[in-house]
Amino acid sequence: MDRLSRHAASSSDPSSLQPANGVPPMSSLMKAFVMQGIDRVEFVDKPIPTPGPNDAIVKTTRALVCTSDVHTVKGAIGDRSGLTLGHEAVGIVTKLGSEVRGFREGDRVAVNAITPCFQCENCQRGYSSQCGEMLGGWKYANIKDGSFAEYFHVNDAKANLTPIPDSISDDTAVYACDMMSTGFMGAEHANIPLGGTVAIFAQGPVGLMATVGARLLGAGLVIGVDGMEKRLELSRHFGADVVLNFNQVDPVEEIRKLTGGVGVDSAIECLGAQLTFESCIKATRPGATISVAGYFGHGDSVNIPRLEWGVGMSDKVIRTGLCPGGNVRMSRLLRLLETGRVDPSPLTTHSFDFDEVGKALHMMETKEDGMLKPLIRF
Amino acid sequence: MDRLSRHAASSSDPSSLQPANGVPPMSSLMKAFVMQGIDRVEFVDKPIPTPGPNDAIVKTTRALVCTSDVHTVKGAIGDRSGLTLGHEAVGIVTKLGSEVRGFREGDRVAVNAITPCFQCENCQRGYSSQCGEMLGGWKYANIKDGSFAEYFHVNDAKANLTPIPDSISDDTAVYACDMMSTGFMGAEHANIPLGGTVAIFAQGPVGLMATVGARLLGAGLVIGVDGMEKRLELSRHFGADVVLNFNQVDPVEEIRKLTGGVGVDSAIECLGAQLTFESCIKATRPGATISVAGYFGHGDSVNIPRLEWGVGMSDKVIRTGLCPGGNVRMSRLLRLLETGRVDPSPLTTHSFDFDEVGKALHMMETKEDGMLKPLIRF
Amino acid sequence: MDRLSRHAASSSDPSSLQPANGVPPMSSLMKAFVMQGIDRVEFVDKPIPTPGPNDAIVKTTRALVCTSDVHTVKGAIGDRSGLTLGHEAVGIVTKLGSEVRGFREGDRVAVNAITPCFQCENCQRGYSSQCGEMLGGWKYANIKDGSFAEYFHVNDAKANLTPIPDSISDDTAVYACDMMSTGFMGAEHANIPLGGTVAIFAQGPVGLMATVGARLLGAGLVIGVDGMEKRLELSRHFGADVVLNFNQVDPVEEIRKLTGGVGVDSAIECLGAQLTFESCIKATRPGATISVAGYFGHGDSVNIPRLEWGVGMSDKVIRTGLCPGGNVRMSRLLRLLETGRVDPSPLTTHSFDFDEVGKALHMMETKEDGMLKPLIRF
Amino acid sequence: MDRLSRHAASSSDPSSLQPANGVPPMSSLMKAFVMQGIDRVEFVDKPIPTPGPNDAIVKTTRALVCTSDVHTVKGAIGDRSGLTLGHEAVGIVTKLGSEVRGFREGDRVAVNAITPCFQCENCQRGYSSQCGEMLGGWKYANIKDGSFAEYFHVNDAKANLTPIPDSISDDTAVYACDMMSTGFMGAEHANIPLGGTVAIFAQGPVGLMATVGARLLGAGLVIGVDGMEKRLELSRHFGADVVLNFNQVDPVEEIRKLTGGVGVDSAIECLGAQLTFESCIKATRPGATISVAGYFGHGDSVNIPRLEWGVGMSDKVIRTGLCPGGNVRMSRLLRLLETGRVDPSPLTTHSFDFDEVGKALHMMETKEDGMLKPLIRF
Repeated sequence: MDRLSRHAASSSDPSSLQPANGVPPMSSLMKAFVMQGIDRVEFVDKPIPTPGPNDAIVKTTRALVCTSDVHTVKGAIGDRSGLTLGHEAVGIVTKLGSEVRGFREGDRVAVNAITPCFQCENCQRGYSSQCGEMLGGWKYANIKDGSFAEYFHVNDAKANLTPIPDSISDDTAVYACDMMSTGFMGAEHANIPLGGTVAIFAQGPVGLMATVGARLLGAGLVIGVDGMEKRLELSRHFGADVVLNFNQVDPVEEIRKLTGGVGVDSAIECLGAQLTFESCIKATRPGATISVAGYFGHGDSVNIPRLEWGVGMSDKVIRTGLCPGGNVRMSRLLRLLETGRVDPSPLTTHSFDFDEVGKALHMMETKEDGMLKPLIRF
Repeated sequence: MDRLSRHAASSSDPSSLQPANGVPPMSSLMKAFVMQGIDRVEFVDKPIPTPGPNDAIVKTTRALVCTSDVHTVKGAIGDRSGLTLGHEAVGIVTKLGSEVRGFREGDRVAVNAITPCFQCENCQRGYSSQCGEMLGGWKYANIKDGSFAEYFHVNDAKANLTPIPDSISDDTAVYACDMMSTGFMGAEHANIPLGGTVAIFAQGPVGLMATVGARLLGAGLVIGVDGMEKRLELSRHFGADVVLNFNQVDPVEEIRKLTGGVGVDSAIECLGAQLTFESCIKATRPGATISVAGYFGHGDSVNIPRLEWGVGMSDKVIRTGLCPGGNVRMSRLLRLLETGRVDPSPLTTHSFDFDEVGKALHMMETKEDGMLKPLIRF
Repeated sequence: MDRLSRHAASSSDPSSLQPANGVPPMSSLMKAFVMQGIDRVEFVDKPIPTPGPNDAIVKTTRALVCTSDVHTVKGAIGDRSGLTLGHEAVGIVTKLGSEVRGFREGDRVAVNAITPCFQCENCQRGYSSQCGEMLGGWKYANIKDGSFAEYFHVNDAKANLTPIPDSISDDTAVYACDMMSTGFMGAEHANIPLGGTVAIFAQGPVGLMATVGARLLGAGLVIGVDGMEKRLELSRHFGADVVLNFNQVDPVEEIRKLTGGVGVDSAIECLGAQLTFESCIKATRPGATISVAGYFGHGDSVNIPRLEWGVGMSDKVIRTGLCPGGNVRMSRLLRLLETGRVDPSPLTTHSFDFDEVGKALHMMETKEDGMLKPLIRF
Repeated sequence: MDRLSRHAASSSDPSSLQPANGVPPMSSLMKAFVMQGIDRVEFVDKPIPTPGPNDAIVKTTRALVCTSDVHTVKGAIGDRSGLTLGHEAVGIVTKLGSEVRGFREGDRVAVNAITPCFQCENCQRGYSSQCGEMLGGWKYANIKDGSFAEYFHVNDAKANLTPIPDSISDDTAVYACDMMSTGFMGAEHANIPLGGTVAIFAQGPVGLMATVGARLLGAGLVIGVDGMEKRLELSRHFGADVVLNFNQVDPVEEIRKLTGGVGVDSAIECLGAQLTFESCIKATRPGATISVAGYFGHGDSVNIPRLEWGVGMSDKVIRTGLCPGGNVRMSRLLRLLETGRVDPSPLTTHSFDFDEVGKALHMMETKEDGMLKPLIRF
């Protein structure tokens, strides 16, 4: 993907640069798990990052592996050399830049996968995930080192550090960094009427969190679609009223039956594939919103079925988005954990120590042993 | 298009049925211009329609021929036999159903191309152009007789008759029925920020009205794109700050140059074609809205270019819609004519008497002699 | 209230007129509970209403008494003579007008307290509760006979009859007619961010349903405020995370403490009183929405505290509204009952046979014996 | 106003602090026009400010005097000592903080009256004018020195410096800093339907810009209300279709007549007074939005007339706001100047050299000689 791959070569964000260095003293080195080329990962020693005036350094305590880490290593956003992986992590603030107010070293914090500056043109326009440029809010393991390291760097710390309330464990809080924010965004963008109907296509971690989000936002009928029974069980656990196994039934046809022939008010795409996308168009009624939460990794185009789209006149809306970041978003997500609205911990099917992160990444690729999310302990 | 063609066979709207008849008295016959099959049109005598309790009958004074009349005759919505064509018309109320309040016989009225019931499920949901079913608000020359006749029938007259103020001529008011409503919708759906940038792809009658709409809604930079110089001149006349002839330049590239490399805030598709659609995706910045006002008549799918769509994560929104109907919409459009915000009359490149409507329709197909809109006088 | 009282004298809606009659046959008479003047109610015999072409007649099975019935009898909307009271009811369709499609006699249906035409100017504008004129969607026991009768009349039946699914009892469905629709509207208008904070002032039946609504719509912290312990217990039952008894604490101060000193994202006013209204302004942060679900029955003005309103520059929004009607709204509410999102039955503190409705109305005024809602059985 | 006055005493924004100084060298002193107490102003020498890492220093070239400068000197936001006045200014960048990218010394820039950080909680929530706290985006001549000085300080320069295109003079660009941004906000918040009706109460500089804004956003009928003929003439010049002199007619009654008895779709309050506010409620139809752009300087409360507010159930919405800042906003406003959508220069009724700013301020208080806006040249 040429458009995105240039990020690696030319970041204009100085905060992402690591200190120019001769050989740093041993005490300032840390272990980091990096991509060294397409399909090549390894542990290396890197200098512990130092903060610019608006930045912070966080000592990692927990992280999650994401399918997009797998994509990255496979070359989805181009080649990388020496780039630390990982973008879902919590930890302890160890250093603060001179201009950062409102936090203290020692604070336990969560940092969203997306770390916008909130001041550039796209941020002011209200599209902070597109900070600087398209998808530019996604900096970790893309245009700067990620969080699979003993320490990680946080740009624009004033807006991107979120204190974790005492009642929430690191193991739980780390789900706010991407899974909850992305999945819930899928539901928020879907324009579900209170009491309306919604279908969520794919019930992986993001799809399951979209299912939770649809319930949290007042959907009256939530339909989860996937092909794996285990995920459909979780879908029911997380709030689906009806689940459909696409290996057993035609989900579009079933959705029409469940909705008196008219289709759902809203559909959420959580896989990033042509088949699920076009099913969203087909399974929805006129005026519906199709909300895309998946990452479309392949092909030149994504195709809209013309007739079910009402030849461009059906009042259907197709929205897209990328994990909303910033500490206001994060505080709201943590509040939902605090008041017991959701418990994402069933997503943690496996856990590993940091030195096993390579194994976790490999299993994430194969999805063996029913893996949903592997939790990494530091 | 099978989905739509069944309308002809089974309308559940009894008001659209013509009176069962033996031979009606001569005085109750009228001349109508009908489609008798794909590519076959002719004048026939039909009974003057009679109103049900909620309906009205209007004596036609002016009508416009629309490109979609051409599509219909070519079979775009399936075969039809004996269906009167035409959906843009104004006239005089001659009969009112027993339940219709607030109007009088003799009122000069405009009737939108789309005549929703406003009471069904889709109407209550706010999608009145999808009345009853997808695109179901479009009744004239689709599921009931149209307005290329000496008289035409208006369902749900309480909501669909709009008195024309004295200061507005029939020749002008008739543009509110479709061209202004559809074109302006294109701009309204485009989410243009006050002072923002917008590109309108195709500058036929709908595109030109979208250009007017973009100006009316506060766009700071309006870019009109077409391939015909005459239309680009009109584009400038109707408010484009810059026009781009796609035969001379690459409009996507030019739009990027005009916007400091980032693309426009909004794009409006007014042709219904793959090329213009994908250009809208490519010419817009993250977070932009692509508003579709065109009618996509061909192919199985309409394709979104994956990378410029930000792999489904760019915050771009694709909206669609169909000419908003009803007398509140119409009154607002007529007010814009009354207070001089727009004068659509330059769209009338030709005019014809009713008995020449076949010739007008033919020229609309060939677009010969620079035809934009032919006005039909009754 | 002069503005509203004129309704009684001159309704332009012919469907609300009772048949002109000499002495009707005994079999076409029914029992109705009417207001005969301010503070005067009694049972009378009335003709069973007959439907116009767009209307329906429903045989009442269950009704609820509303505090606004008390207000009406006390003269809040002016004097009335012979007006049947009641506006929350379900029943069986017994007659359908000639133009009403999609229903059958014998259907078990719910009818919202507000019965808009959906075709007039305000309805088309999207404000169907203001049908015809301000508050004009409120027809029952205001501009036409209400539902405290053996039969009641439904105008614009196509849009206002809602079939009740088999799994929902009449006792439960009747709560959709006003309490759920109004209370949920309070929450929908409050613009609560997912995970945001909201305070609901007053925990009567509408306030309790607003509490449910806030939970259904994803509030992260819900604060219920009232002065009666029993209502605060129900508030907790229906989803409040924290309840505040204003007889024991200053709710504005407590809300500030609970929100880190800044105030809530949203406040919902459910009483219609100066004190709760101004508390909403004071308890909210900049940019908050104050949603009014209460009926303000007294005084010349309702006063905004100037400083807490940010001298008119705080980005605070004050919204108002009246119980949304129509069968799309009702179907969504019934779906929430069907899929178990809410069970309003704890609101039914008492039940009565129809001939005891006078007693129920009296107790509703005194609120004796902890009455919340009395259910009337026919 | 105690709530706001504490700003003077304790700003937590370090960038607003002037350098601690012994006696600075003459060359680093500048002339500033300051408030020394309620009703006391004078010229003093102050050190030229120096930028922190995220700041910039601008050499002032043009400024405008605002009625709120008069209010400030009269004590409306509390006492101040040594505070430089002024918040509408343009100039030349002379120094940039170490972290500020994308600008160069020598750039000609405009700076909005409101300079948010865009990173704090309220900014992330989308309410940047409430930066840090209620009204906290308003820093100049409130919580930091203003721009009636040879140089002024710009916090968060990345977001708050706006390059001025060559085609726009300083004399014109300076109107974007407050008058256009505030007046247009009044129109943007008013939810005017395309072709809808709007009344703007008070036609001072903000009201006149709200009138322009209403036209730019597609209002079909714009009604300007004021008591001074000269302002009503300008109102017509800037786009009002009808003007009403409240000394000659009852504007509420006239507005009803102009709108078929129903009232306007939207009203904009541009004075900050009880009478105009309640007229907005009275002159609007159900479902209308009342947009407040005025600054309410007096009294404990602002009162909503209860009946015309529909006893809290009319679907009327009351919005408020404070001049939107930031360089995205400013760039859009400058674009509207560049493409000729508006020319605010008729607002400049007088101009003065900087050493006469005291005289300009005095005339602004008395409004003598028909003063609208005095332009200050440096």
